[in-house]
Amino acid sequence: MKKVAVIMGSDSDWPVVKGACEQLGSFGIPYEAHILSAHRTPDKAAAFAKSARADGFGVLICAAGMAAHLAGAFAGNSTLPVIGIPMKGGAMDGLDALLATVQMPSGIPVATVAINGAKNAAFLAAQILSVSDDALAARLDEHRVKMAAQIAEKEAKLQAEL
Amino acid sequence: MKKVAVIMGSDSDWPVVKGACEQLGSFGIPYEAHILSAHRTPDKAAAFAKSARADGFGVLICAAGMAAHLAGAFAGNSTLPVIGIPMKGGAMDGLDALLATVQMPSGIPVATVAINGAKNAAFLAAQILSVSDDALAARLDEHRVKMAAQIAEKEAKLQAEL
Amino acid sequence: MKKVAVIMGSDSDWPVVKGACEQLGSFGIPYEAHILSAHRTPDKAAAFAKSARADGFGVLICAAGMAAHLAGAFAGNSTLPVIGIPMKGGAMDGLDALLATVQMPSGIPVATVAINGAKNAAFLAAQILSVSDDALAARLDEHRVKMAAQIAEKEAKLQAEL
Amino acid sequence: MKKVAVIMGSDSDWPVVKGACEQLGSFGIPYEAHILSAHRTPDKAAAFAKSARADGFGVLICAAGMAAHLAGAFAGNSTLPVIGIPMKGGAMDGLDALLATVQMPSGIPVATVAINGAKNAAFLAAQILSVSDDALAARLDEHRVKMAAQIAEKEAKLQAEL
Amino acid sequence: MKKVAVIMGSDSDWPVVKGACEQLGSFGIPYEAHILSAHRTPDKAAAFAKSARADGFGVLICAAGMAAHLAGAFAGNSTLPVIGIPMKGGAMDGLDALLATVQMPSGIPVATVAINGAKNAAFLAAQILSVSDDALAARLDEHRVKMAAQIAEKEAKLQAEL
Amino acid sequence: MKKVAVIMGSDSDWPVVKGACEQLGSFGIPYEAHILSAHRTPDKAAAFAKSARADGFGVLICAAGMAAHLAGAFAGNSTLPVIGIPMKGGAMDGLDALLATVQMPSGIPVATVAINGAKNAAFLAAQILSVSDDALAARLDEHRVKMAAQIAEKEAKLQAEL
Amino acid sequence: MKKVAVIMGSDSDWPVVKGACEQLGSFGIPYEAHILSAHRTPDKAAAFAKSARADGFGVLICAAGMAAHLAGAFAGNSTLPVIGIPMKGGAMDGLDALLATVQMPSGIPVATVAINGAKNAAFLAAQILSVSDDALAARLDEHRVKMAAQIAEKEAKLQAEL
Amino acid sequence: MKKVAVIMGSDSDWPVVKGACEQLGSFGIPYEAHILSAHRTPDKAAAFAKSARADGFGVLICAAGMAAHLAGAFAGNSTLPVIGIPMKGGAMDGLDALLATVQMPSGIPVATVAINGAKNAAFLAAQILSVSDDALAARLDEHRVKMAAQIAEKEAKLQAEL
Repeated sequence: MKKVAVIMGSDSDWPVVKGACEQLGSFGIPYEAHILSAHRTPDKAAAFAKSARADGFGVLICAAGMAAHLAGAFAGNSTLPVIGIPMKGGAMDGLDALLATVQMPSGIPVATVAINGAKNAAFLAAQILSVSDDALAARLDEHRVKMAAQIAEKEAKLQAEL
Repeated sequence: MKKVAVIMGSDSDWPVVKGACEQLGSFGIPYEAHILSAHRTPDKAAAFAKSARADGFGVLICAAGMAAHLAGAFAGNSTLPVIGIPMKGGAMDGLDALLATVQMPSGIPVATVAINGAKNAAFLAAQILSVSDDALAARLDEHRVKMAAQIAEKEAKLQAEL
Repeated sequence: MKKVAVIMGSDSDWPVVKGACEQLGSFGIPYEAHILSAHRTPDKAAAFAKSARADGFGVLICAAGMAAHLAGAFAGNSTLPVIGIPMKGGAMDGLDALLATVQMPSGIPVATVAINGAKNAAFLAAQILSVSDDALAARLDEHRVKMAAQIAEKEAKLQAEL
Repeated sequence: MKKVAVIMGSDSDWPVVKGACEQLGSFGIPYEAHILSAHRTPDKAAAFAKSARADGFGVLICAAGMAAHLAGAFAGNSTLPVIGIPMKGGAMDGLDALLATVQMPSGIPVATVAINGAKNAAFLAAQILSVSDDALAARLDEHRVKMAAQIAEKEAKLQAEL
Repeated sequence: MKKVAVIMGSDSDWPVVKGACEQLGSFGIPYEAHILSAHRTPDKAAAFAKSARADGFGVLICAAGMAAHLAGAFAGNSTLPVIGIPMKGGAMDGLDALLATVQMPSGIPVATVAINGAKNAAFLAAQILSVSDDALAARLDEHRVKMAAQIAEKEAKLQAEL
Repeated sequence: MKKVAVIMGSDSDWPVVKGACEQLGSFGIPYEAHILSAHRTPDKAAAFAKSARADGFGVLICAAGMAAHLAGAFAGNSTLPVIGIPMKGGAMDGLDALLATVQMPSGIPVATVAINGAKNAAFLAAQILSVSDDALAARLDEHRVKMAAQIAEKEAKLQAEL
Repeated sequence: MKKVAVIMGSDSDWPVVKGACEQLGSFGIPYEAHILSAHRTPDKAAAFAKSARADGFGVLICAAGMAAHLAGAFAGNSTLPVIGIPMKGGAMDGLDALLATVQMPSGIPVATVAINGAKNAAFLAAQILSVSDDALAARLDEHRVKMAAQIAEKEAKLQAEL
Repeated sequence: MKKVAVIMGSDSDWPVVKGACEQLGSFGIPYEAHILSAHRTPDKAAAFAKSARADGFGVLICAAGMAAHLAGAFAGNSTLPVIGIPMKGGAMDGLDALLATVQMPSGIPVATVAINGAKNAAFLAAQILSVSDDALAARLDEHRVKMAAQIAEKEAKLQAEL
């Protein structure tokens, strides 16, 4: 299976971003996590993105806050699907990072998930890989059944309490 | 190759959404375009999403404005990657549709592109399919070269004018 | 009397949402509370909404946060009045949930109350039922008198302190 | 059948607000339309609201823009359900009117619809009246079938064009 | 001297609003503080506003949060200058109350101060009364000198620390 | 009677700002209109403000857009009441000018009216002068009666049309 | 004198951006204008920035809209002062570009000017170069005098009209 | 070397603003820190700005919150580059201060950095001074190398932990 790269702009993002890694791991998807900055290590970031497809990656996940350029910088240097996680912590509850991640110009999309949505970045990466991997698609379907079961359990608990 | 479904909530979205279809076509990616509403034809929308993988689709693109639920409704009924295009036309220049598309709960991601970003939805769909399709990856690389050439041409024209 | 359904997308909404249930109870209005998700249990949610009128419900209250689609999903599957409570907790202090709840397309309204306004959802449900129930209308009038008396009491306490 | 009152703060709102009247008329719901201002004719507005239930009204629809207080003023003077239509035209594409309409304090709800959502105010009023009127409920169900048919027609037209 | 009325919509506003009373007191301006609600005691609020000029008031200060209608309701029932204090605590850090207070229609202004700006409401009331009261104008000038002196003191302290 | 100064930061504001002058004129209030810039002519602006009370002014109206500092600059140099008109034309439909005008620090208030609310600035100035001018208060009351009559006329016209 | 580079992400920015060039020219400051994209020509953009100081540039002006990364990409590859012009045209009247330009992480600042503020970018560049260039400082002072004279002229014209 | 002035509107800004001073100190750049208010000590602020160039300053850094006029007031009284730091603490997470700082009119720019971005104000000041100071430029380059090394260290630590 192709690997997923989970890139964060700062180690302070790790407490949220590790949620993506754990979710990838639970689906048995190989992944690497790295700290790379669009502004402080621009050459390393560009080099990583440029060779990512040849290095066996299938999806690139980038998490950054404020003027969040990391996902965009990766998207400009690779034609692999790039998933952007806008991180809270800057202005207006993360609206800065959301707009800086999602409002990409024509030709260079970033697949943006919710603010701090690291787990959903992992789900989306898994869904992308599942397009050509029926076993992974089956695991995703199982997870949906599990989520529905959890809701049913909570519903039962609520009815018992009422 | 897997097909891409391009779904819009209203025929009034077509002038923007057809940009996605044209771009998919220019990459030789098979696609279908449909009008389906999360609120007015909820059963048809759910049925389409549920059978989409079995019906040969690899990516689902959903365009909707205002309280844009279409992409979310598809995402809740399929584990295929769902790309959401928030449409302008409601409140605050499309911020309503952007937030209603991107802020999905854990487990059910929508890969959100820019407001009215229909072309980028097509590019993202192509990038997703390229994960397991080297020929398509090559076409995407060629397109990047072409975009760079267009910029170089405009730069040359500017220098000539100055 | 027709019943009121109080639906929440996640059990984490219960501390706020139970305010709606308590208020309904204090007016003697029969109600049910349920956990149903527009995205994780879409079929159950749709089924509940479709049979709600036949099942004796008169008003449906739906609470959800972020890309809050729950009320919209119910509204698309029932012609009963649907009241939406946008929950805080996502981006921009609940503006995401507010816009995703209120900006519904033509033909499928959601009666939206304030962010986290669970009590007001119950008041609104009672007011809706009071249109054909004079006894309930009288209880609502009494409650207004009680609220005015509470303000008068606080005013008296303030004057005593000054 | 109970009447619906359609109140607007200014005659400049009429081009949008008449959409509510037309929709009510198409459902055979009796209605009155009035111009009353929360700020310029506060006594008349309060008097209208206070006697509205006794005067045979079942639902009050109020449309106002900017610091939109009209719906709130009606809601403070009646326990009938009050539907608020936030009008565009002030600041930030109508966000001022939306927040001034929806963010009501506990005990005095306003059932808020989308910005400029006059038609949906009429649909919501019809749904409220349908709680105790099976014939009206049937007409609302028919309208849903008609909306679905319109979408199917547009879908067919799109397929023919593609 | 004319009195200033300081009105708040809820006793929960008192911890902020009393800042206005203290400031008025420090200028020797007579004032009354009251709890009156635009929605829960609309008749009392209207009556207070209508007789305010005859009752010896010169300025009306109104503090309210969320869909903050209190100042607007007073402004609609009096031609005295009405100062509005938008209170934090609703959505978006008080933006809801700010827009609901400031965006008044033509002919019915509210003199709006900063979010939670109770002290400034008192300064503004004093400035308004100073138009025809030279002694008060002199006290305001003295206060400006005092504020400048406080800054100079802090500047001196900073220079000592550096 | 004390004069009102109407200051604008740019002659491009005049089409809106002259509405304030006309309204002042219709109340028989003496006024002067000037173009002065907080940034381009800071000394003249400060000098004007400093001598305004001695020069016979009772109220200062300042209109400015974008990072609207004009009202604040006047407020920092005079203890007369300063009314700020945030002008549209910058970012976010005038939200920039609104926040730059209203969010003043403690001790230096600006009485802010609606975005582009030049007429209301004049009404507010008249209301301020009316605190010590019963004849002006009477004219303001008459104007309220006139406004109510206009609404009644429009209501009659609407009823005739329906 | 050091040169100023004026970089834009797209030739569609030129009608606004040329205002910067004209202003630089009027101060006699040598400049170059180029079209370079952070996403479509990332290597060229990085290369330009890296050699800019050695190539004789003193200030870099970058104009971009939407998820405006251009200024940030330049700032990450040069320690010259980088001025960012957020361009209108994306979401929310240019708020997306403003936040994406200004909210830079620690160590990599972008000197951000107003939305579409191309002329001010030129003034700021001139001010930066004036720190070590007394003749340029004198020209800037003269320009201030000229601006004040223009205001005085408009003021005179207004007085003549009143 | 020219000095940098670090001005804050209130001593409550010092905990953030001292970050700018420390950073300037670490680069060996001479600086002064002062408390001066655009509204409470307008004459002192204007006087400081007017003589700043003659007093040996090269860059002026101004920090202020809410209706942040300090940087604008300095910019209107000096042609030195003025850097504005919008401070958090007012409305909407500092958006008020950001817009009041950055949206300056033509001819009077403020070089705006991120909300609370005191350190970046210092970096930007250093970059401005480096235009004519090769030794300082070298120190800035060294700092970039150090930042990249810190990221590499954190990356190594992360790899060790995974």
